[in-house]
Amino acid sequence: MKTRLTEAFDLTHPIVSAPMAFAAGGRLAAAVTHAGGLGLIGGGYGNPDWLEQEFGAAGNARVGCGFITWKMAENPVVLDQALARDPAALCLSFGDPAPFAPRIAEADVPLICQVTTLRDAQRAAEVGARVIVAQGAEAGGHGERRGTITLVPEVADWLAGHAPEVILLAAGGIADGRGLAAALMLGADGVLVGSRLWASEEATVSAAMTDAAIAATGDQTIRSSVMDAARGLRWPERYTARVLQNPVTERWHDDPDALRADTAARADWAEGWAAGDPARANTFVGEATGLIRNRPPVAEIIEGMVAEAEALLRRAPGLA
Amino acid sequence: MKTRLTEAFDLTHPIVSAPMAFAAGGRLAAAVTHAGGLGLIGGGYGNPDWLEQEFGAAGNARVGCGFITWKMAENPVVLDQALARDPAALCLSFGDPAPFAPRIAEADVPLICQVTTLRDAQRAAEVGARVIVAQGAEAGGHGERRGTITLVPEVADWLAGHAPEVILLAAGGIADGRGLAAALMLGADGVLVGSRLWASEEATVSAAMTDAAIAATGDQTIRSSVMDAARGLRWPERYTARVLQNPVTERWHDDPDALRADTAARADWAEGWAAGDPARANTFVGEATGLIRNRPPVAEIIEGMVAEAEALLRRAPGLA
Repeated sequence: MKTRLTEAFDLTHPIVSAPMAFAAGGRLAAAVTHAGGLGLIGGGYGNPDWLEQEFGAAGNARVGCGFITWKMAENPVVLDQALARDPAALCLSFGDPAPFAPRIAEADVPLICQVTTLRDAQRAAEVGARVIVAQGAEAGGHGERRGTITLVPEVADWLAGHAPEVILLAAGGIADGRGLAAALMLGADGVLVGSRLWASEEATVSAAMTDAAIAATGDQTIRSSVMDAARGLRWPERYTARVLQNPVTERWHDDPDALRADTAARADWAEGWAAGDPARANTFVGEATGLIRNRPPVAEIIEGMVAEAEALLRRAPGLA
Repeated sequence: MKTRLTEAFDLTHPIVSAPMAFAAGGRLAAAVTHAGGLGLIGGGYGNPDWLEQEFGAAGNARVGCGFITWKMAENPVVLDQALARDPAALCLSFGDPAPFAPRIAEADVPLICQVTTLRDAQRAAEVGARVIVAQGAEAGGHGERRGTITLVPEVADWLAGHAPEVILLAAGGIADGRGLAAALMLGADGVLVGSRLWASEEATVSAAMTDAAIAATGDQTIRSSVMDAARGLRWPERYTARVLQNPVTERWHDDPDALRADTAARADWAEGWAAGDPARANTFVGEATGLIRNRPPVAEIIEGMVAEAEALLRRAPGLA
């Protein structure tokens, strides 16, 4: 396939992997790049040791790295650490990219901004993002309220009028060739894929959590703050995280502050998280969990998505 | 264009209009049918006099009718009233269609079930729906939480395995040819369009509310219960309605029960609603409001959507 994304980053396929905290290490990112997409290490909350290890695990593969902006801002040394690796791209999500854009530009690294509103897309373009990822609420993990199917074309329209050189990716709910083809119809130059690659051989996700996601339908996820309460993380209020519904969300979803104050419950969550237990901690996956039925290698996932999208685009369903 | 929807209902275009309560009268429905789609009168809460008037306003156009299932169940005589008009289809949304499906089948009228979860899609297929509309949370007015971009392919997969004869439409966030083309890629046989047709010459919507929607971006809507609290309507808790954010949502969104108990505030809302005032009542529109920039006649909207979708399908963006 060929889009402005594949041309700008010299990719075979218009697919970027989401920089999923904890789940997207160097092995996953490298596998995505080797399969013809662009892999991003999930720098997440900014642990320097972990970052060093995972850039190492990526070997010689040309990968990028993503951070949770508001959290990275507390310890920006990890940004320099990532930039020192000459990443293929640096992705910032959830927070104002403005304080970091100049440093990233100086390093001559393309800036990818993941946004959840039109307003934040405008901000990202203003600070010089090379790529904007419009992430819909369907996405697993942190996100906001807008849906992919409206956010993507609305951002596309704004970019067309104000910053036509910016590349646009769709994220949130895209797990197969249908989603990829739909994203291209909506005006995206490619997709950022989370959940589908989270359930891959190369992701660092427990078998039990992957199995829970495979068994679930898309009806069974929820956007919640319970996992942040359990971890004592102070995410900005506008963001919640999509996870599988489980006893933790059932008990605490309506009152995360009570969980925040409950030391024993938080310790139990932490134990469950360490054990990869989908009943005691939270399984971070999107609504696309209902489209995920196995845990194949990354290469198989990407080849399957592209083949299905190409077939759909050729067939052009609906044309008389 | 040609899909299983156009063939089953003998349409020129795979577009059905949403049976929007208050906004979709006979004039709008007839215009949709005359433009080559299928128009549905918004029977809504089931007012017999209004229904009689609007079927009359549709004239000889072959239109269908939709009801809010849980509300119609309180006074099912309006279902018989609609069936007596030999509608092109009868659409049920928000509630269990099972008690009414036999009567609709007896009348030999195709049943359209609008659903917001995979589970309800399964239920709709079981009771004999001819068409299932998978409605995502992006939609204006009442709906639930799932996004269009995951719900449509997940329902498509389930139908393929269990009820392949059922026609599938996508709804929620579809306002132009990009959305229509994307829906076809996701596995839908067509689309149900609300907001875009709500902002048409033929809709019974105040100019002030339409203008407010045209001015708004998709960031400025919210799913809320305030309008039901204001009207004293007891919607099942799972459903909220997407509206433009305004002083009413700002004041009452977090505590709709207080509004329910506030007689003066409710009276003010009712006055605002009667006056079509977007500041004092609520403007029912979806996230697609950010894609809507004018109020043209229905025919122009439908022709534009189809032309744009056809061009996209022919161009097949992304194919190398």
